Amino acid sequence: MNAGKYMLRSGLALISLLPVSPLVAASPDEAALAASNEKNACNTLFSCEQNRAEKFVAEMMADGIAVPVPKDPGGGYTHEQHKRNYKAMYQAGQLYRITGDIKYREYVRKMLLAYADLYPTLGDHPARSNQYSGRLFWQVLNDAVWLVYSIQAYEQVRGDLIASDRKKIDDQLFRKAAHFLSIDSKATFNRIHNHATWATAGVGITGYVLNDPDMTERALLGSAKDGKSGFLRQSDLLFSPDGYYSEGPYYQRYAMMPFIVFADAIEKYEPKRKIFEHRDGILLKALRTTIDLTYGGYFFPFNDAIREKSLDTEELYHGVAIAYAQTRDPSLLSIAQAQGKTVLTLPGKEVSDALAAGKAQPFVFTSRLLRDGPSGDEGAVAILREGSGPKHTALVIKNASQGMGHGHFDKLSWQLYDNGHEIIQDYGAARFLNIEAKQGGRYLPENESWAKQSVAHNVLVVDGKSHFDGNLKVAEKTAPQQLFYQDTKGAQISSAKIGTAYPGVTMLRTMGLIQISGLDQPIVVDIMRVSADKAHQYDLPLHYNGHIMRLGFDVKSNVDRRPVLGTDNGYQHIWTDATGTPAAGKAFLTWKLNDRFYTWRMADVDGTQIILGESGANDPDFNLRREPVVIARREGISDTVFASLLEPHGLFDDAAELTVASDSQIKSMSAHQQDGKDVILIDTLSGQQLAFAVSYDPDPKKQHQIDVNGKTVSWKGFAAPITMNDEGE
Amino acid sequence: MNAGKYMLRSGLALISLLPVSPLVAASPDEAALAASNEKNACNTLFSCEQNRAEKFVAEMMADGIAVPVPKDPGGGYTHEQHKRNYKAMYQAGQLYRITGDIKYREYVRKMLLAYADLYPTLGDHPARSNQYSGRLFWQVLNDAVWLVYSIQAYEQVRGDLIASDRKKIDDQLFRKAAHFLSIDSKATFNRIHNHATWATAGVGITGYVLNDPDMTERALLGSAKDGKSGFLRQSDLLFSPDGYYSEGPYYQRYAMMPFIVFADAIEKYEPKRKIFEHRDGILLKALRTTIDLTYGGYFFPFNDAIREKSLDTEELYHGVAIAYAQTRDPSLLSIAQAQGKTVLTLPGKEVSDALAAGKAQPFVFTSRLLRDGPSGDEGAVAILREGSGPKHTALVIKNASQGMGHGHFDKLSWQLYDNGHEIIQDYGAARFLNIEAKQGGRYLPENESWAKQSVAHNVLVVDGKSHFDGNLKVAEKTAPQQLFYQDTKGAQISSAKIGTAYPGVTMLRTMGLIQISGLDQPIVVDIMRVSADKAHQYDLPLHYNGHIMRLGFDVKSNVDRRPVLGTDNGYQHIWTDATGTPAAGKAFLTWKLNDRFYTWRMADVDGTQIILGESGANDPDFNLRREPVVIARREGISDTVFASLLEPHGLFDDAAELTVASDSQIKSMSAHQQDGKDVILIDTLSGQQLAFAVSYDPDPKKQHQIDVNGKTVSWKGFAAPITMNDEGE
Repeated sequence: MNAGKYMLRSGLALISLLPVSPLVAASPDEAALAASNEKNACNTLFSCEQNRAEKFVAEMMADGIAVPVPKDPGGGYTHEQHKRNYKAMYQAGQLYRITGDIKYREYVRKMLLAYADLYPTLGDHPARSNQYSGRLFWQVLNDAVWLVYSIQAYEQVRGDLIASDRKKIDDQLFRKAAHFLSIDSKATFNRIHNHATWATAGVGITGYVLNDPDMTERALLGSAKDGKSGFLRQSDLLFSPDGYYSEGPYYQRYAMMPFIVFADAIEKYEPKRKIFEHRDGILLKALRTTIDLTYGGYFFPFNDAIREKSLDTEELYHGVAIAYAQTRDPSLLSIAQAQGKTVLTLPGKEVSDALAAGKAQPFVFTSRLLRDGPSGDEGAVAILREGSGPKHTALVIKNASQGMGHGHFDKLSWQLYDNGHEIIQDYGAARFLNIEAKQGGRYLPENESWAKQSVAHNVLVVDGKSHFDGNLKVAEKTAPQQLFYQDTKGAQISSAKIGTAYPGVTMLRTMGLIQISGLDQPIVVDIMRVSADKAHQYDLPLHYNGHIMRLGFDVKSNVDRRPVLGTDNGYQHIWTDATGTPAAGKAFLTWKLNDRFYTWRMADVDGTQIILGESGANDPDFNLRREPVVIARREGISDTVFASLLEPHGLFDDAAELTVASDSQIKSMSAHQQDGKDVILIDTLSGQQLAFAVSYDPDPKKQHQIDVNGKTVSWKGFAAPITMNDEGE
Repeated sequence: MNAGKYMLRSGLALISLLPVSPLVAASPDEAALAASNEKNACNTLFSCEQNRAEKFVAEMMADGIAVPVPKDPGGGYTHEQHKRNYKAMYQAGQLYRITGDIKYREYVRKMLLAYADLYPTLGDHPARSNQYSGRLFWQVLNDAVWLVYSIQAYEQVRGDLIASDRKKIDDQLFRKAAHFLSIDSKATFNRIHNHATWATAGVGITGYVLNDPDMTERALLGSAKDGKSGFLRQSDLLFSPDGYYSEGPYYQRYAMMPFIVFADAIEKYEPKRKIFEHRDGILLKALRTTIDLTYGGYFFPFNDAIREKSLDTEELYHGVAIAYAQTRDPSLLSIAQAQGKTVLTLPGKEVSDALAAGKAQPFVFTSRLLRDGPSGDEGAVAILREGSGPKHTALVIKNASQGMGHGHFDKLSWQLYDNGHEIIQDYGAARFLNIEAKQGGRYLPENESWAKQSVAHNVLVVDGKSHFDGNLKVAEKTAPQQLFYQDTKGAQISSAKIGTAYPGVTMLRTMGLIQISGLDQPIVVDIMRVSADKAHQYDLPLHYNGHIMRLGFDVKSNVDRRPVLGTDNGYQHIWTDATGTPAAGKAFLTWKLNDRFYTWRMADVDGTQIILGESGANDPDFNLRREPVVIARREGISDTVFASLLEPHGLFDDAAELTVASDSQIKSMSAHQQDGKDVILIDTLSGQQLAFAVSYDPDPKKQHQIDVNGKTVSWKGFAAPITMNDEGE
């Protein structure tokens, strides 16, 4: 009925839907206007995009041809004008293909002739900030993007131009642009890096359009045509075998564009290359993985990431369309339906027609283990999903490598989504994209001082320092080792370790998403086992989203002026609301987010201080969000096990004014170590008892047994949940 | 196409929709299940409600008849059981009417016989907290609610019972219950108060069902049958002539239920009373006004209010259904469609059928002036709406009376909704309804210490004390005077004054929602004119929603330990982030909320300190939300004018990564006083100049003129915007 429609926005506010009549007006006149507009409305994705493009291109055409001498950096006039130009040309090219209307061809022709006049006169960009200058833009990356769009515009009109125009545009513009990108900018062209993907895509497609096999071959195999660089090599090294891109979801999304668009061109011009089968279909795998790295349509915001970035983005309109055209996978159609937008290309038309014909099938978001690294041996990201629909539970565990310069110091970090919301958060980046007032939209200083630091994540922090002491080069040398993964419904488990984040300290973290009989929602179990060669201070922060309802223990509160938790490595940004040292069984915190409650609970808290804090201190420019955090702190120990769980429970139905189970349904938890194995015992109020046991032994067939509190806990393999009784429901 | 669908939730997070395929699954099995459920799904509001009721009543019937001896207070077992019982009986009664299935009649019959056994044995409730005890419940109000529902259940079955059952239930239960409410509880019965509405409704409907005209007459006219109390008198005194209920929207919504349900019964049994025409149709006016007191479906949260309360609520399912049955107004159908739920009564069926037949028309949310007080002379609430659809702008100005015990000390306060969100906020109440952990769901101490206090509102605060020094009895004696109101599109203006909130201080506040040529969004203009018989400290707080982007002026920041702003009257709950004393033209603050920017700007700031703060200090139990506030402070003056404006501007399109006009489009503003008139001059970046002028003269025909900066500003009447030039677009 109303099932399934939901809202996409900042992970902080994915909320449930009350459908509203589309006919809510503020005056009778306005209601009539809306009704009239409805009559003229487009009714397929493609026709709506065509309407939009026609309107945009008409506006651009009315403005005339403006091809200014490059002068301004990003955000400035000449930069933005050249961007508008390539977008307008690209759409005009598609509209020419679709409608045959000569005015579109003429617009592209005139624009490209103007570029052909300008381009040969250009040297390094005046606003360049380093040696990787562009010609039209301050960075070579932007020139590459310009080329990718503009050559596709040219592709649509070239055959219908008079020879002299064609020659001029071929030789004075595109050959020179390709030369700049592939020869003058060889350093970028031959990198194994997203910037090189754009450059090789631009040059490669130009090679096809100009029928210049040498150009295309250099794009595919590198300048030396030896395959050690170039597009194919990039696809081998920038994605893991599971199609995961180590910079993280936000940048994976961006990187997909040149990969998928160039591949689409390769398939069209050289189908015998079977580019979509290359490396076992790595490009289509990567596209699918990109979609899998979302909840509620929003990308997991780990590493440098803008939290508002969703599947509703240019790169994925193309990606979904091209992937559908290649595979005819009907589940991609429901992604397109969610996006509500497609592209004007032939693949976009296929998507639109298929959707209109009712061919969409559900896109099944499954649990996945995404290995990291080109060989898949540099850690992994585990996505454990339980339930279905927009309110399902997703535990995201980041056991991945550093992820280059945009990576954060967050080894073994995690996030939890549930009930349509982000419950346990990753901060993302401290950056307000494209907003002049926030340092021109660049990464802010607080991105380094807070967002990348370990304490800003749900990770172990030792002696108040970040992983690898915040040193990128050191961090890039090693990665976690994924030890175990299973995605059996109701018993999903992931375990990983790393021994290099701090000298002499090994962190081994096992997490489970477990259904307990009698509890409505699956719970998260977290066993962080730490061993070290000397005593340390260990902090385990948890960045939660919600309003505190109940504390199980007394605290000393700083209600007036709150002190700051530390002086560096991110600690300077945390205000301390309260601290406490809970007795056994009392270390729990319940909060509410919208219509559900969450209780976090820790066992074995003798010697553990709990700190309730909030981010936002030492932020004179108001660059940070203010968000709550709870930290478990142990000092003066070397080996320890932090055993905790997170239990979603209850219901707060404000329409019916009904509250159910606003307090935890768990009576107690205890943690036990024996023979190097860990067991957590959980007792519910209604009498169930569950054990979660970890042997750490990789042999899946081996039986294990521990006696705890007079009970025998036995299981097979690395880890398992074990129902200890059958009482209650 | 996708127009109009939007989300309803906390005013903090009304956000725009990206539609999603309803077929998002987490596994192939779950997808199949969802598809199967879809086949059996109900497809009208009525059939869905019937499904729900059948399921609920089946569960209750399976549990057997439980009519426990009353013992527990609200939230406890016997209280909740008696509530479940009346709900089940009510729904069973309707199901019997609809289906004729005898099992429903039997269930009601057995339940009522059990109550008939119990009721005569009852005295005052054991858990009563005052003298207004119920019999079944700790408060007489709950007994009245029980009676309203249970008598409607009995109404459906009574005629089909054997005489002995009928006599027993009539005499041992309902006559006794009506006696308790109307005679034993005469003090409540004869009040002019919502509790009395419930009591008279219960007794009155019982009189109809038992064919006892005396009972009904006492309910309608009061115990003495002289009309000085009773239902009719309540409808005269509890609503203003515009149907506004002075306790505020949250309680208005609650109060509507007994009014509308009893009126429906009166109309059915005594149509010649023409109850819906009484007092010029006051009940239907009140129902419409209740709907008008919302944005995005959520009630304006002023006075004591739970922010999550929306039109999706039992009282309004009944209200909309009954009003539709009386008026056949098709715009009510789109409210029902938004609610997604109706009731099982005949009016509910009418709504459902009419909706299914496509008869819904837009509900037009217009600007309104809602007078307060039974005679309409105790101030008013002005709702100024500009634009249409879910993103329209609504300026809500509260020039109303105190509103009894649930009122806040917030004279001349305001809120702004725009772009689907609450931009300038009213805190609502400090209460977590029905949540045991938060003092059992009751109003919290912080409701008194923060939420009711003046500084928690967008009002003038003098010498750090609340209006009427926080004294309810004093506050109830006077109300603001609405001086002017016009709702001409593009030039909507409201003005009011009060001279009794502080001894010797008169506040006169004129606000406008004004379209300026060349600006995309209307702006809010605020002229707070203060005159006093001696010098004071004046604070003008603004509680905004969003993330700071830019400050126009330098501040001294408290980035580490933030001091608290004061010691009482709410000031103890505000942390001070930063303070500054802006130079002329520099007193502005820009923030961002989702995809739009807002700039607040103040003129004439010589001697004004701007304080940037955040609520949440001195809150050891984490009962408060932490929300930003900006305060303009002037000290040591008696007469002053605070002239400010709030400008929505720009666009932050994260999907397209496009930012437009993230900074103010206004170049400057200045404020001028002459001959007791106020003028604000506003210059935009693109060259428009607008004057907003206030004469304070109520004569609508009188011409006024002021010379400002060499220009002549002339206008007619109390206040007006005047375009000063025609330059630019």
